[in-house]
Amino acid sequence: MSPEKYKSVFENAISALREEGRYRHFADIKRCQGKFPKALYYGPDGTKEITVWCSNDYLGMGQHPKVLKAMHEAIDTVGAGSGGTRNIAGTTHYHVELEQELADLHGKEGALLFNSGYMANEATLSTLARLMPDCVILSDEMNHASMIEGIRQGRGPKRIWRHNDLADLEGQLKTINKNTAKVIAFESLYSMDGDVAPIEQICDLADRYGALTYLDEVHAVGLYGARGGGIAERDNISDRVDIIEGTMAKGFGLMGGYIAANTLIIDAIRSYAPGFIFTTSTSPVIAAGALAAIRHLKQSDVERNQHQARAADLKEMLRQHKLPLMESSTHVVPVFVGNPVLCKTLTDVLLDQYSIYVQPINYPTVPRGTERIRLTPSPLHNGEDLRKLVKALDDLWREMKIERAA
Amino acid sequence: MSPEKYKSVFENAISALREEGRYRHFADIKRCQGKFPKALYYGPDGTKEITVWCSNDYLGMGQHPKVLKAMHEAIDTVGAGSGGTRNIAGTTHYHVELEQELADLHGKEGALLFNSGYMANEATLSTLARLMPDCVILSDEMNHASMIEGIRQGRGPKRIWRHNDLADLEGQLKTINKNTAKVIAFESLYSMDGDVAPIEQICDLADRYGALTYLDEVHAVGLYGARGGGIAERDNISDRVDIIEGTMAKGFGLMGGYIAANTLIIDAIRSYAPGFIFTTSTSPVIAAGALAAIRHLKQSDVERNQHQARAADLKEMLRQHKLPLMESSTHVVPVFVGNPVLCKTLTDVLLDQYSIYVQPINYPTVPRGTERIRLTPSPLHNGEDLRKLVKALDDLWREMKIERAA
Repeated sequence: MSPEKYKSVFENAISALREEGRYRHFADIKRCQGKFPKALYYGPDGTKEITVWCSNDYLGMGQHPKVLKAMHEAIDTVGAGSGGTRNIAGTTHYHVELEQELADLHGKEGALLFNSGYMANEATLSTLARLMPDCVILSDEMNHASMIEGIRQGRGPKRIWRHNDLADLEGQLKTINKNTAKVIAFESLYSMDGDVAPIEQICDLADRYGALTYLDEVHAVGLYGARGGGIAERDNISDRVDIIEGTMAKGFGLMGGYIAANTLIIDAIRSYAPGFIFTTSTSPVIAAGALAAIRHLKQSDVERNQHQARAADLKEMLRQHKLPLMESSTHVVPVFVGNPVLCKTLTDVLLDQYSIYVQPINYPTVPRGTERIRLTPSPLHNGEDLRKLVKALDDLWREMKIERAA
Repeated sequence: MSPEKYKSVFENAISALREEGRYRHFADIKRCQGKFPKALYYGPDGTKEITVWCSNDYLGMGQHPKVLKAMHEAIDTVGAGSGGTRNIAGTTHYHVELEQELADLHGKEGALLFNSGYMANEATLSTLARLMPDCVILSDEMNHASMIEGIRQGRGPKRIWRHNDLADLEGQLKTINKNTAKVIAFESLYSMDGDVAPIEQICDLADRYGALTYLDEVHAVGLYGARGGGIAERDNISDRVDIIEGTMAKGFGLMGGYIAANTLIIDAIRSYAPGFIFTTSTSPVIAAGALAAIRHLKQSDVERNQHQARAADLKEMLRQHKLPLMESSTHVVPVFVGNPVLCKTLTDVLLDQYSIYVQPINYPTVPRGTERIRLTPSPLHNGEDLRKLVKALDDLWREMKIERAA
């Protein structure tokens, strides 16, 4: 093929995104440690201070003094990177301690670290399918892209069940031979709507039909449960879930993902998942910070309570202004826009004129026609931050003639 | 399926590894910042100081003062994690600067960061295949697992060509329609043997047959070229390679991977690769450290020269003792053992009795029957470290009756 032809392939791919209004510009920002949610925005006209309203550092642990202290100490003690894969010089004592801490957090025998939550899902689900070639994976239709990719890569049979729909799940389980291996894969808290899975009833079905359960808790760990063990801990059913997947990149303020499960499953994934085996392990500095964040949130409820209170305050203010809050029982605060171009314009104006940073949530992250903004209040957003945000939204809803709540 | 049946599936998977002698125990170590290659080993009988001889922190940049200073400063300036995906609050100014630095390092228009080199390969190759569904990927038979997985996931047609064999590559290129898109995927420096690809001749073939070139330089960036741009820079042909993939986890001492290419390709991968889109970006602390390492190695040859000198010294000492060095022109120093159980026993004894940490390299990392130890001398291994290592190997080769060099 000629160089020109290659060029046109890539140009066409990019044009398609532009035409649909979903070409992405990344906002270049620099957080201000000690002043979160404030950040410096590097815009076309220079820099300015903004308030971040779309970070998944839900509890502000990314600037918690204990976390930063642990990271400084790790740098001084062991240096920057681990220097190898887990099998070749890259298992540091920080990794060992962190896996023990995560196992304990979820009441499991073991845990296994990955460099991202995406890789934790992809590697684990694809490896399960490869170890059990006839295994049917039953996947909630709203599962995250990383779970979908993992299932796809496993190349085994799969079934998609209607979102959080127990009757549909059971209907499908019934049709699968009882001697066939099955994995029910789902999330506890769906991040774009904020709704919660009926974990206990799904586990009941898993028991009845002989399935393993795989639960993604990335938007819940640190945030729910008496020790931050997620929705499963809150609902007191962690022991009934076979594999819990979580992240250090949201509630714990750092980066990286993990699974927690019994020793046998951990050992199998550890030994067979190429995405685990052939990756340089996460920096001990990151592991040290994560350890500090997890340990702190195991014994402190302050951040969790403030977080829920802030979310409740914001939701109430949105309702008062008839801004179309998409209701849920969790900390997720989506506001409905319903049009990708309008959604993008709205967030551009918020950033340019109000110094408020919210990212538009468009397809493929959410279905077309359900475009929205997604607000993430944290314990560190103060009353003034909330008032300014709601005032700005109220102004723009009026100016841009976006539909109000009924 | 019953819980017992699941148990036996995983047990059988683990047993298979044990029977082949390739079940992996991770050595739990803690590097000593300022004393690399020394580390603390957490063994069954407590801790002891060891010398690490298998780290991929080839230049010791993981403890370079400039790197550690940059990380400390980033923690104090912005905190721990980025707080989001690149599109949602997770593009920090450190990421923007680092991508510019990497693009410049390879003389390309742009670069794109991933949380691991594994993900850089997997996401880029699979996305290329998805954007060009008929594209034939021609893959060197010795390519890394992450490239193989990426090609596999792309699900397009693929051809495996004999390792570094230009005639075989050309033979295969000839049979593909000239209007069909093609990608030649290969590495510059193969890490387990230390041999180097004929990059220029491969680029000649790519031009002749209208193929894109994808070059993995993970074991070369930082180590080769006047500014650490890898073998392609050393050979003055970076501009002829379409996509260069590299890592921050080896020569640069941290973690994470990247690609460098023209703006159009970077934009397409950025916009379509789920493993990029749906991952929380790397911590700004890691990005800051990587920036410092890359900038230092762009203007300093000291580490590169010492590294090569150390490798040459070690190779000469191995030859003098008739230890079966597998010869190459690079810094990689493999010593042939040829048996997985012997290889494991050898390294166990090295650790237990000599406090020398070397990991056995067994299948699937290398073909069966070619098991070896792989030594990684760095500028920070001193003369005494080398003498102790070679003395230990000489003793054990005698005691364990391992075959000597001819």
